[in-house]
Amino acid sequence: MMTSDLAALTATDACARMANGEMTAEAYVAACIDRIKAREEEIQAWVYLDAENALDQARAADRQRTSGRGVGLLHGLPVGIKDIIDTADMPTQNGSPLFKGYQPMRDAGCVSALRAAGAIIIGKTVTTELATSTPNKTRNPHNPEHTPGGSSSGSAAAVGAGTIPLALGTQTGGSVIRPGSFCGVHALKPTLGLISRTGVTLQSHTLDTVGVYGRSVADLALITDALSGHDPCDPVSYVRARPNLTSMLARGMMTKPQFAFVKSPAWEFAETSAKESLAMIVDQLGDQVKEIEIPALNGIIQHHATVMGAENATHYGPLLARDPGGISPALTARIGIGGKILAVDYIKSLNARESIYADIEKILETYTALLTLSSPGPAPKSLASTGSHVFNGMWTYLGVPCVSLPLMQIGHMPCGVQLIGMRRDEARLLATANWFEKNVRAIRN
Amino acid sequence: MMTSDLAALTATDACARMANGEMTAEAYVAACIDRIKAREEEIQAWVYLDAENALDQARAADRQRTSGRGVGLLHGLPVGIKDIIDTADMPTQNGSPLFKGYQPMRDAGCVSALRAAGAIIIGKTVTTELATSTPNKTRNPHNPEHTPGGSSSGSAAAVGAGTIPLALGTQTGGSVIRPGSFCGVHALKPTLGLISRTGVTLQSHTLDTVGVYGRSVADLALITDALSGHDPCDPVSYVRARPNLTSMLARGMMTKPQFAFVKSPAWEFAETSAKESLAMIVDQLGDQVKEIEIPALNGIIQHHATVMGAENATHYGPLLARDPGGISPALTARIGIGGKILAVDYIKSLNARESIYADIEKILETYTALLTLSSPGPAPKSLASTGSHVFNGMWTYLGVPCVSLPLMQIGHMPCGVQLIGMRRDEARLLATANWFEKNVRAIRN
Repeated sequence: MMTSDLAALTATDACARMANGEMTAEAYVAACIDRIKAREEEIQAWVYLDAENALDQARAADRQRTSGRGVGLLHGLPVGIKDIIDTADMPTQNGSPLFKGYQPMRDAGCVSALRAAGAIIIGKTVTTELATSTPNKTRNPHNPEHTPGGSSSGSAAAVGAGTIPLALGTQTGGSVIRPGSFCGVHALKPTLGLISRTGVTLQSHTLDTVGVYGRSVADLALITDALSGHDPCDPVSYVRARPNLTSMLARGMMTKPQFAFVKSPAWEFAETSAKESLAMIVDQLGDQVKEIEIPALNGIIQHHATVMGAENATHYGPLLARDPGGISPALTARIGIGGKILAVDYIKSLNARESIYADIEKILETYTALLTLSSPGPAPKSLASTGSHVFNGMWTYLGVPCVSLPLMQIGHMPCGVQLIGMRRDEARLLATANWFEKNVRAIRN
Repeated sequence: MMTSDLAALTATDACARMANGEMTAEAYVAACIDRIKAREEEIQAWVYLDAENALDQARAADRQRTSGRGVGLLHGLPVGIKDIIDTADMPTQNGSPLFKGYQPMRDAGCVSALRAAGAIIIGKTVTTELATSTPNKTRNPHNPEHTPGGSSSGSAAAVGAGTIPLALGTQTGGSVIRPGSFCGVHALKPTLGLISRTGVTLQSHTLDTVGVYGRSVADLALITDALSGHDPCDPVSYVRARPNLTSMLARGMMTKPQFAFVKSPAWEFAETSAKESLAMIVDQLGDQVKEIEIPALNGIIQHHATVMGAENATHYGPLLARDPGGISPALTARIGIGGKILAVDYIKSLNARESIYADIEKILETYTALLTLSSPGPAPKSLASTGSHVFNGMWTYLGVPCVSLPLMQIGHMPCGVQLIGMRRDEARLLATANWFEKNVRAIRN
């Protein structure tokens, strides 16, 4: 097998090969690093990558395996870490000059969990400025004139370029699903509270959610299983059973899935080509899909914007006050606008969430998943913006799990189909996504 | 024993007499009703009282006892219910013309708990307008020219007048402890989350706390034991062990208590006579008291005001919008001011709470309780205001338990000594309060 072929394996396949002794972690990580080197000049996905450190971790993983000691769920698999997530052995620079060279004392909770599962923390991927909308240097792996999306730009681009199998992102608006859609990557933003946020730069305590990228639905299940756990330091983390997603996925769907096609208030912002492409997907589902309207979603885009704006201004306002020159004009303006939001409006928007979700949950008793676009269209041909999160913010606000599947190709650029499930039910959502990929033909438009 | 003597029993003593067969619930409730009738014209503590309904409940309690069936913790004890707490068989009028004659469908969680413990729900006590600052008709039982305090005006006045042994209040600013201080009553505002708030009119979801009045520390323990419990419908209710307060009280103090005398940022608002009186209390404690400063409390009065103002405007704003004529000018102004609070300030004030509490908790590892005034002085000679909650808002904000003991008499009016404990440790706080009453002489000034 060629080095480039090794690098192209899914995480699940790579894991199986290493378990069978067909491949060492060192060879696998070396192949990934080679591929990164080949693509990096064009894509600019990485802000920190120490090949020797990664290979050292890989060799240690190999020694552990060959000694007969137990191995973790992600043993020997390289994972890219978005640069707002703390790592004890690499800087966390938050895409901001204010954090240039900043070296955290500890790993974030999610990085600890990856290490505990035997993963190789290969490097830090580029984020937009403080994980907001101001673009950074990364380009789309499918066409460098297009944005990769943001704010998890580097993570999505690295997986989309086929350089690494797995990466972490975070979503406050649409920062996991949108770049996943733009870069043609499988992406999961899980239920708020499934994965620890301790050690992740705080932008919005109500919305910030850690998510994952992989090369298949099974990859998403694998890494999420390793990350899922209660964290008493994170106020949104919940104490509940966390079903094993990989084994639930292997069991398959227990019933014939039924999809609710939901245009949502974001539909008016979608491009015609994307609407047409999604129609070609929906058509294939026959009697297993029904278009429904959800009146409870009216106003939800504003609720999300209010919560995000107020919390963003709260958490980044002090940075701006301390060092105004270190914050971009766009983020400065955004903090200014957020700082003017009234507490009564903020509280109303917080309080509206549970009643809206109650309606969604009721719908998801009849339907297996909601189906819609992952983004208004494919990645815009521009590096001046990371695109719109209008198809994502509402689901972040509701704290529901969302998966993006790279099933559409529109004008040579990928675009995702988004499936949305019940809170705390990643198991059914991923099983449904797997069914979807096996039964629905990808389309080109 | 005379009827008037019966009515003067503590709840704990009345309970014992009924258990021994020395007194029926009917005789006890009848004595309370007689005493209410004798004092009501002057005090105006009740907005709803149906003597026949109360006597029916009492007779049913007697039948249950004489039949040999099990009885509850509060079996046969009459309890007054603040008129913002829902009762399925009596109106809840919230001290507001907007709720004139409003009959709830269900009992509030705390009323259910009282009924389950065998209590007699004797009637509804007067509250200020929507439990805010606008006074209602109640007068101080120690001098009708003075305010009883608010917003639990009727509950405190009814117990202070010796008409009933137990009553429920609620505190968002200082609405349990302040009327307790002004009416010479034992009062407990427990830890936020100890007692269910379901079915209690919502003024501030972060601050609203159900509290109790009684005739002794043992009475506070008895009724709180009956009320304490997890309520999954109340987001602040906690799932933790709830020690039995009555049995902990019977066991007594395990160590010699040490008090931290805390003037707090409220001290500048205290009257000279109250400061002098508290000094006479503090002097008696000798080496068991030390005055300490808590720098973490700087700014806390504003934090409480910000959270209360914003949440108040959120929850009462829609009432004002619907029927502007039904809200007093004072409350209208308060909603207007609260509506202008910025979300960033609100979030900062919410977030400051845990770090301030961390300092308080550390102090309470060295000291058994904090000691301060329950109010800036005795009840002001005025019916135009219910007095200031400046000595209470900060503890409500921190969610810590506070007890007021009627140990001072200043110019013929009562004034309370306030003890403050750790969150979720009513047991030590009440045992400490009991020790305090046994070892510290009440003073007249």
